[in-house]
Amino acid sequence: MKLTRRNLLMTTAAATTAAAQEAPKPAAPAKPRTPAWPGSCRAFRGDALREIAFPLGGIGTGTVSLGGRGDLRDWEIFNRPNKGGLLPFTFATLRLAGGGLAKPVIRVLERRPLPPFGGASGVPRETALGLPRFREAVFTGAYPFAHLRFQQPGFPVEVALEAFNPMIPLDTDDSGLPVALLTYRFTSRAASPLEAAVAFSLMNPVGYDGATRLRGRRAPFFGANLNEFRAERDLRGLLLTSQKYPPDSARYGSLAVLTTAGDVSWRLAWEHGGWWDEFQKWWDEFLLKGRFSNAASKASPDATTEYATLAAHFPLGPGETKRILFVLAWHFPNTENYWTQEKENRGRPLRNWYGSRFASAFDPAAYAARNFQRLRERSARYRDLLHGSSLPPAVIDAVSSQASILRTNTLMVMENRLTLAFEGCNDNAGCCPMNCTHVYNYEQALAHLYPDLERSMRDTDFLTNLRPDGSMSFRTPVPLRQGGNRNQPAADGQMGCVMKVYREWRLSGDDAWLRRLWPQVKRALEYAFVQWDADRDGVMEGEQHNTYDIEFYGPNSMMGTLYLGALAAAARMARHLGDTVAATSYEALFQQGGARLDQLLFNGEYYVQKVDEKQERAGRYQYGEGCLSDQLLGQWFAEVVDLGKLLPHEHLRAALRSIFRYNFRASFEDFPNTQRLYALNDEAGLLLCSWPRGQRPALPVVYSDEVWTGIEYQVAAHLIYEDLIKEGLAIVQAVRDRYDGARRNPWNEIECGHHYARAMSSWSLLTALSGFAYSAPHQELRFRPRIQRAAFRCLFSTGTSWGGYSQSLTKEKLEATLEVEGGTLELASLRLPYLGVKPGLRAPFKGAVTLQQGELAIRPAAPLTLKPGDSLRVAVSDSPLP
Amino acid sequence: MKLTRRNLLMTTAAATTAAAQEAPKPAAPAKPRTPAWPGSCRAFRGDALREIAFPLGGIGTGTVSLGGRGDLRDWEIFNRPNKGGLLPFTFATLRLAGGGLAKPVIRVLERRPLPPFGGASGVPRETALGLPRFREAVFTGAYPFAHLRFQQPGFPVEVALEAFNPMIPLDTDDSGLPVALLTYRFTSRAASPLEAAVAFSLMNPVGYDGATRLRGRRAPFFGANLNEFRAERDLRGLLLTSQKYPPDSARYGSLAVLTTAGDVSWRLAWEHGGWWDEFQKWWDEFLLKGRFSNAASKASPDATTEYATLAAHFPLGPGETKRILFVLAWHFPNTENYWTQEKENRGRPLRNWYGSRFASAFDPAAYAARNFQRLRERSARYRDLLHGSSLPPAVIDAVSSQASILRTNTLMVMENRLTLAFEGCNDNAGCCPMNCTHVYNYEQALAHLYPDLERSMRDTDFLTNLRPDGSMSFRTPVPLRQGGNRNQPAADGQMGCVMKVYREWRLSGDDAWLRRLWPQVKRALEYAFVQWDADRDGVMEGEQHNTYDIEFYGPNSMMGTLYLGALAAAARMARHLGDTVAATSYEALFQQGGARLDQLLFNGEYYVQKVDEKQERAGRYQYGEGCLSDQLLGQWFAEVVDLGKLLPHEHLRAALRSIFRYNFRASFEDFPNTQRLYALNDEAGLLLCSWPRGQRPALPVVYSDEVWTGIEYQVAAHLIYEDLIKEGLAIVQAVRDRYDGARRNPWNEIECGHHYARAMSSWSLLTALSGFAYSAPHQELRFRPRIQRAAFRCLFSTGTSWGGYSQSLTKEKLEATLEVEGGTLELASLRLPYLGVKPGLRAPFKGAVTLQQGELAIRPAAPLTLKPGDSLRVAVSDSPLP
Repeated sequence: MKLTRRNLLMTTAAATTAAAQEAPKPAAPAKPRTPAWPGSCRAFRGDALREIAFPLGGIGTGTVSLGGRGDLRDWEIFNRPNKGGLLPFTFATLRLAGGGLAKPVIRVLERRPLPPFGGASGVPRETALGLPRFREAVFTGAYPFAHLRFQQPGFPVEVALEAFNPMIPLDTDDSGLPVALLTYRFTSRAASPLEAAVAFSLMNPVGYDGATRLRGRRAPFFGANLNEFRAERDLRGLLLTSQKYPPDSARYGSLAVLTTAGDVSWRLAWEHGGWWDEFQKWWDEFLLKGRFSNAASKASPDATTEYATLAAHFPLGPGETKRILFVLAWHFPNTENYWTQEKENRGRPLRNWYGSRFASAFDPAAYAARNFQRLRERSARYRDLLHGSSLPPAVIDAVSSQASILRTNTLMVMENRLTLAFEGCNDNAGCCPMNCTHVYNYEQALAHLYPDLERSMRDTDFLTNLRPDGSMSFRTPVPLRQGGNRNQPAADGQMGCVMKVYREWRLSGDDAWLRRLWPQVKRALEYAFVQWDADRDGVMEGEQHNTYDIEFYGPNSMMGTLYLGALAAAARMARHLGDTVAATSYEALFQQGGARLDQLLFNGEYYVQKVDEKQERAGRYQYGEGCLSDQLLGQWFAEVVDLGKLLPHEHLRAALRSIFRYNFRASFEDFPNTQRLYALNDEAGLLLCSWPRGQRPALPVVYSDEVWTGIEYQVAAHLIYEDLIKEGLAIVQAVRDRYDGARRNPWNEIECGHHYARAMSSWSLLTALSGFAYSAPHQELRFRPRIQRAAFRCLFSTGTSWGGYSQSLTKEKLEATLEVEGGTLELASLRLPYLGVKPGLRAPFKGAVTLQQGELAIRPAAPLTLKPGDSLRVAVSDSPLP
Repeated sequence: MKLTRRNLLMTTAAATTAAAQEAPKPAAPAKPRTPAWPGSCRAFRGDALREIAFPLGGIGTGTVSLGGRGDLRDWEIFNRPNKGGLLPFTFATLRLAGGGLAKPVIRVLERRPLPPFGGASGVPRETALGLPRFREAVFTGAYPFAHLRFQQPGFPVEVALEAFNPMIPLDTDDSGLPVALLTYRFTSRAASPLEAAVAFSLMNPVGYDGATRLRGRRAPFFGANLNEFRAERDLRGLLLTSQKYPPDSARYGSLAVLTTAGDVSWRLAWEHGGWWDEFQKWWDEFLLKGRFSNAASKASPDATTEYATLAAHFPLGPGETKRILFVLAWHFPNTENYWTQEKENRGRPLRNWYGSRFASAFDPAAYAARNFQRLRERSARYRDLLHGSSLPPAVIDAVSSQASILRTNTLMVMENRLTLAFEGCNDNAGCCPMNCTHVYNYEQALAHLYPDLERSMRDTDFLTNLRPDGSMSFRTPVPLRQGGNRNQPAADGQMGCVMKVYREWRLSGDDAWLRRLWPQVKRALEYAFVQWDADRDGVMEGEQHNTYDIEFYGPNSMMGTLYLGALAAAARMARHLGDTVAATSYEALFQQGGARLDQLLFNGEYYVQKVDEKQERAGRYQYGEGCLSDQLLGQWFAEVVDLGKLLPHEHLRAALRSIFRYNFRASFEDFPNTQRLYALNDEAGLLLCSWPRGQRPALPVVYSDEVWTGIEYQVAAHLIYEDLIKEGLAIVQAVRDRYDGARRNPWNEIECGHHYARAMSSWSLLTALSGFAYSAPHQELRFRPRIQRAAFRCLFSTGTSWGGYSQSLTKEKLEATLEVEGGTLELASLRLPYLGVKPGLRAPFKGAVTLQQGELAIRPAAPLTLKPGDSLRVAVSDSPLP
């Protein structure tokens, strides 16, 4: 059944059902008219701005970050991380004249600097921090949007900045643009007309290696840098190139800055001179003349580059508001394989995906400028559905902010969308390469937001990295190589990958894809029978390398639940594909394994490890009687993919409660930790492991005393799945409190590296709180909100579609609305909560409704197909619906 | 006349004079019984601790700094700067047992860390910041002493730390010890006896290059590192060596840590292991056993080193206080010439002075431990005389803190006490080499505190760097080379050097030394007649290279006053040496030049520059009509060395007032500066130049918009010399407010580098406020306090002696006391202030007193010789003295 467009649906009398009917009511929850953003966001100011670096960039394009003060920092657009990387003299400046001003005023569009101000020769002058700035700024961020309000008492203009890079779920193309869109907004407080100009200055960085600290425009890798002005009908801007490098060089590329402003002036190269002359002359020209010369320029001498400025000029009447858009775009199409240890591959250039889509930085800049309204609206819709949802602010913050990871240098996308993912980023290099199976066990954001890239990783896992013996290389050498590397496989990673195939298949419904992978999936699963579960009792006991970079010896529920989850997932896939023999065998082993694991390891409070003391290396780095935060990792994953319980439910709940009770600390002030330091002083956080009953091994599992946000979110989400809401939210709040802008950057959670992929487990907070599940093979969508059920709203992404869900729920009635924003939602079944006993349905389709254990199953007579803009509203009630 | 010892003097009836007499009175100002320190010091806590790094080290030995939290940071003991340099796992820890404690507690003797806590993998674990620390600390510093009080509510022991390196004026040997003396003080708050232990852990760093960031005990330069325990009758400690390097290698050396505690245990190498095992086992051993194993150790495998621990054990009864001394000492005898651009000399090892005095780090450690009380008392006496003086706290702070520069890597002392001084320190290298004549124009601390080293610099200036044509190499190549380098001479530096010879001679009275240099001094001065003052009118007009790293063209009073000062100084030296021809000619030129300079350049408010437009390069970097803060630099120097006025007094005062009025800014918030950034936001400071009447050149004198503390102190002192006290103190306060611990390190003023030598101009604040002057040739000492004259106290250092001066002054009476703490003070004449009209003297010697313009001249019948411990008290009154 094809549904009508939203407007049509809203105004027509809808189809009847077997049950009662009801007219649409304005009281029903609907798309919020006023987005909650930025109401749900933290506002940062003063000291809390110091660590903020909000990444602006598309998937696989690298990023430049917006600092808390409005500065551009951490230039990571050169195909590698670059924490602290600064482009000299790259900043935007406002000039005002007229409006009753005695003389022109110039102010850099940033907050003034925060201490410390040390440094061998003072604050580096190439920051341009010597120019006047605003006294304070208030930063709010709702990824992908950052917003800054600048404050300066008595300043004749109100100034704000909105910065973002388009992010639209499922739309990998438009979410993969190498641009930063900066919109400065000016509102005059002056009594008479002002003449305003915004000058965007930047260094031509083409040739930069992305790692050296730049202190000016001189460096050996520069030379033949050329800045050109380009005007097209609706756009004016600068293209910054270099003629020094051929197109296949890793140093080759371009930068562009464009504006849609009508009146511009520009300077293609700051006037040269000794000492401080270049900057002084630039200042004098802008201050005194107010416009730049528009003079021609030529390529720079070797080992030097040029600074350039593009200025937009506009009048601003009293009370008037104007917006000036600057599109900053880049194009560095060749990634250098700097990370491999293999001599023959080191330094080999690789073409990246975005590089192959565009010819120069001008192309994506122009595309983004011309499609600005659409890109902004779609991105804002994603933002508003998430930030306007009923989730607690800390959860929204965790889900929203950590989705940024997939658009940092942690994730590389190469030609043909081959997805290569580091675990995270060191200051100047990805760390550790590549597609690590066990770290990516935790990540759930990419799978739901950009499942095409997630499937690319599965292809690599199973079609390239799986060896003939069924073991999987748990890292990916580049270039890809059949069988991957020679390291031992990771038990958790390999089992997790089987579950991930199940997830990807459920979200895509792509049977052909599943069939292609299936023989390899079986081989990967059955490798466990050889290596880890040699006695084939459904419980691993062999040497189990895992995400703690060590081996577990003997049964443990972390590997155990992943193994059970893999068996359960594989059984379902086998049934679907008609592989009955496999299905039956997996199901049997699943049953046997679950019972045995529970019997072996549950100590009344939680699941322990039975260390296999016979193993030579089992004397170290085991957790034994400890309470491991990851002890139910497989069960958590099973919740996300709706696989059901792997172990007795009450034991699972008890174990979760124990994890919270024993591993969550309100303070680390008196906690001695010889390991790595992610929580300090009076910060709160969740330990990886504790030994509440004593018997802590002298040399316990490594990382036991650490605090990893990826595991914190995993446990928090799992607590929430079990309706232990308060506990789950306490953990999430603790994480976000640690990332408060003064201590750490809210948009960069660290573990072994910045922007660490494990933190994308935060997406499961959204699925847990909304009770979201989607099975594309069954075209079944479920919501089971766990908070604020009376009036609940959330974002969803099924992998094929995304949009908003909202419900109002009373004792006797459910009203629910589904709005599709992108993709296509095929719907044969909708499962929703219900508190009544006699459900009668009113919906714009014919269908049946059944109630089981407080959950409705609404089945249209024929599957529905919802497209972007479609809205589906259903009402179910014990009373007759009007 | 030989004076008696202090005690004797105080109790004997003293000699009579021609005038009246008076018995000693307790009311007279005397050595303060309770030192004012730390009352006059700023107390830092919280955020203000962040930037603090208090250097601990002797002259020419390098330093390790005490961080504001009590941590050891910036390990600059390897013959080069090393900002941020950390020695992994080097920290002190307290363990307490008994005392009613349920179980032992361990706490690192540091405050807990301050945010931010970012970093690619969290806060680096080798900081040991994972162990419990104290919640707060209060840091006070009165160089060379740092004091920390640790705060932790409910902790059973009060803990404090005193850290210093001996600093005794004129005693270069005992002020040149490569040690840091750390005394931890513990006072029990427990009701029953405690068993306490302090464990000092450190890495054996021998082989370290002093620049690489260390992340653990593995690095290519390590190997064959050996830690040994040594006990001598009164000392126990560890000696850390390496057998990898021969004694002439720059990597050769040793470290030692000693204690005078009686009961010790130790670990020569932390037990090895994977992952975090070494630190975990160390923790467990200390926590559980409370003592270390004292096991033997052997040299480390190549590319690794070892951690070691020395623990002092002691019982602590209820209410009892105990002090535990740790002496940290180092011995890295070979400096590598890393700074030269000359290929043939680069990397060449040079033997440093302290290296040649000791055989290993154990020697200075044992020396310092055995002489601890004396070294501490003498150093504390220096501290107390300065910090207990009547100077305003900001001035004490400026004088005291910046004297530390001469004990940082800015100043190197090589074999035979050859003094090689950088301008300052970059993060990992001195900057810029070496003995820069013009930067060292401003420095006055070394000259007064360690004049032997200052004279070494003069020897190099005149006996090595002066070329046959009379031009002086304004930098010193290493190894020394006759004629220095080939660069043009600096006009200000060369003239300043003539004044400095005069200063050194005045302070030493060493005629033989003066005679040795005199022909060269004349040659250097007379080079001006050729190069800078070709028309020989006493005013420079040629190309004048100077401390702004550019050339002035045309007459200006900055070079002009230095030239006049050099002429005046040279004339006096010539007269003294009987070189009448030269004296007469210099005097004549001085007279002529002063008149001409004033006439040419005084604009009614201040002295301008008459730019010589005919010079090809005079279109840039001149100051023209500007008001230059350094415009009276030569006059300031003349005040310090008591040379009198070089220009009309009222014009000098007017110019000084103008400098303050036009160049001192209360805020930099709206000040655009394209140059380097030393003052930001709402900070106050003194610009190098301004153009109050307009006519700022398009490209003005470089650095004009900067703020240099060395010039700020120079101007402040000069204002004070002219009794413009309020203005002078406002500048000093502004500097110290910028260095507030949160913004910048109070013990590290930056210009072109850390610990920049120019800042040692702060010593002239002391001479200005006390009106101190000493002429050794005339054995004449003068005080002319400019504040708090009714009851004034101060430190003095004549170059041959040091001690305290105090006075009480009423309308009719002066009581003054001179106490000599070190050296020998020869006294033929004492000039002191007096408000009466009929001075009658009571003093322990026969002598005459005359009064002229409010200043007494007291002349003993025979010169007095005051030795350490001697105290001289005089009283002068209009009334008959009892």
